[in-house]
Amino acid sequence: MTKLVEERVSSFKVMIDCVGMRALITGGAGFIGSHLVDRLMEEGSFVVCADDLSLGRKDYIHHHLNSERFVFVECDVRKHNLLAPLFERYAFDVVFHLAANSDIQAGMRDPSIDLERTFFSTYTVLVCMQKYGVKKIVFASTPAVYGMQEWPVGEDTGPLFPISLYGAAKLASEAYISAFVELASMQAWIFRFPNVIGERLTHGVIFDFIKNLRDVPSELTVLGDGKQEKPYMHVSDLIDGILFVFKRTDEARNYFHLGVLDATRVSDIARIVIEEMKLPPVSIVYTGGAQGWRGDVPRFQYDISKVSKLGWRAKLGSTEAVRHTVRALLDELSLK
Amino acid sequence: MTKLVEERVSSFKVMIDCVGMRALITGGAGFIGSHLVDRLMEEGSFVVCADDLSLGRKDYIHHHLNSERFVFVECDVRKHNLLAPLFERYAFDVVFHLAANSDIQAGMRDPSIDLERTFFSTYTVLVCMQKYGVKKIVFASTPAVYGMQEWPVGEDTGPLFPISLYGAAKLASEAYISAFVELASMQAWIFRFPNVIGERLTHGVIFDFIKNLRDVPSELTVLGDGKQEKPYMHVSDLIDGILFVFKRTDEARNYFHLGVLDATRVSDIARIVIEEMKLPPVSIVYTGGAQGWRGDVPRFQYDISKVSKLGWRAKLGSTEAVRHTVRALLDELSLK
Repeated sequence: MTKLVEERVSSFKVMIDCVGMRALITGGAGFIGSHLVDRLMEEGSFVVCADDLSLGRKDYIHHHLNSERFVFVECDVRKHNLLAPLFERYAFDVVFHLAANSDIQAGMRDPSIDLERTFFSTYTVLVCMQKYGVKKIVFASTPAVYGMQEWPVGEDTGPLFPISLYGAAKLASEAYISAFVELASMQAWIFRFPNVIGERLTHGVIFDFIKNLRDVPSELTVLGDGKQEKPYMHVSDLIDGILFVFKRTDEARNYFHLGVLDATRVSDIARIVIEEMKLPPVSIVYTGGAQGWRGDVPRFQYDISKVSKLGWRAKLGSTEAVRHTVRALLDELSLK
Repeated sequence: MTKLVEERVSSFKVMIDCVGMRALITGGAGFIGSHLVDRLMEEGSFVVCADDLSLGRKDYIHHHLNSERFVFVECDVRKHNLLAPLFERYAFDVVFHLAANSDIQAGMRDPSIDLERTFFSTYTVLVCMQKYGVKKIVFASTPAVYGMQEWPVGEDTGPLFPISLYGAAKLASEAYISAFVELASMQAWIFRFPNVIGERLTHGVIFDFIKNLRDVPSELTVLGDGKQEKPYMHVSDLIDGILFVFKRTDEARNYFHLGVLDATRVSDIARIVIEEMKLPPVSIVYTGGAQGWRGDVPRFQYDISKVSKLGWRAKLGSTEAVRHTVRALLDELSLK
């Protein structure tokens, strides 16, 4: 007992030194998480980053390791016995829960991946929040909860019948978050955002195209008919939008689309990658079919008027964000 | 290997003897499940009833134990190693997945109850269905998936923000069913039904009122202000509606409200119970507040025009079903 009290005391000392939030970021060493860490550290917050480094990378957050306002804990947040001590030690104002499986196709091959990495992690976070009285959760959700819908959809569109286990695990997480809001008088901020791209991207179509063209520069295989068209959002805009809404809304359940007004075809992404890599003519092979893969939602665009009314919009459009990201990834790769 | 083949052969012999469906009913010894068993047995189906008897009771299905078309297996359907052998042995046409926690208040005290008994059981059923190629699932869902909504709601109303873990686990189950429909080319029938009552009812407000008045006939405590008003449906109508819709619809995802047009106030239920028990004047104490308990949705009524358009409607209204049930439960109790 004495030891725990001492640890609490030392955490209070830490808290005095921080001018922003005391935030736990699960998945904080991942692509999106590490950008959120950067932003909150800039703002003077105290940040505990919990990440099992299965998808995240320590070099994405290594520049904060010497800060007194930053703690990195390598842990699997699904495991209550690993996560609870963080809540015991630090009095968090808010949990940014980003830890999840982000490889949708892997989740379709093995149903346990999204169940464990996305849903169980949410459940464990909620149980810890309830036990330790942490009242605010920010959750990274997805339009995949809508499944195949007539687009564009608004935040209140139903029914919610996801067609991927990725979408199912996110919807299951939303459902549990909503119930815990009632059960433990919490507040939730649920953001459904489009494909997010930018520096430190570790997977997805842009990443794959660059990787494949570096291996075989003369030919590129594109899944589906190339006409899949989705909105892409730059990660800097995403973080900006999350914090903008978080600081200006105060309902029990705050739920918003974050998005851009345009969308980009897969075939255009291929063209931009080829242009930016300055390659000679490339033979593009389409595998055919409307869906890139089973569980893929080939075309989506959703209503972002709710967040627009709050006064926020993204700085970069979808195709701008794609080109920006291609250049950044080529820079990152050339440095290695 | 040889043994498995022999078992499959013997199961094929069983199948030849049945004129209806080859059905697995999880939770088949429960209140609703046992009524479904009765109906499918009447129709000449081959029925495997899997139930761990935690809420179900063997005497609800004992009258079928001698039938060659009926198999009772006492097992926890969350456990893959117990459920999979049933799929291995019998080639089911359809799974009626009713196994779930039905005690909403218990679920609010311990979040693991709905998670395990409702959601995990659904997940295990889906994994077994995918592995053994069973293509049809009928699922017992709930309007609790809507949380606090402007009533009446239609099947396509959003957002879905449940306020109980019961509702959250059902929505999580719906989400996974929908994703498996895509993943394994299944078909799903999702029914969201109101409070279901009738013979063999084991819990709920009618059950509690009778039990409490038998203990203390002079006083009755009613949770909330007594104005909570909900539609009650007789279990015979529910089973009728489920099978009616199941036999007439053929989408990948078929989802329907089953309900009645009227609703019954808690204070009226108290009055009917007191009348039917022929008690002298009873002092009714209301605990106050709009909600009976945390997570309670105090008033709901939903649009049943979708199922009406198919040509189905319940025979008993809500208050008729209440009185019918009170009489039946008093008969059941007097026999003991």
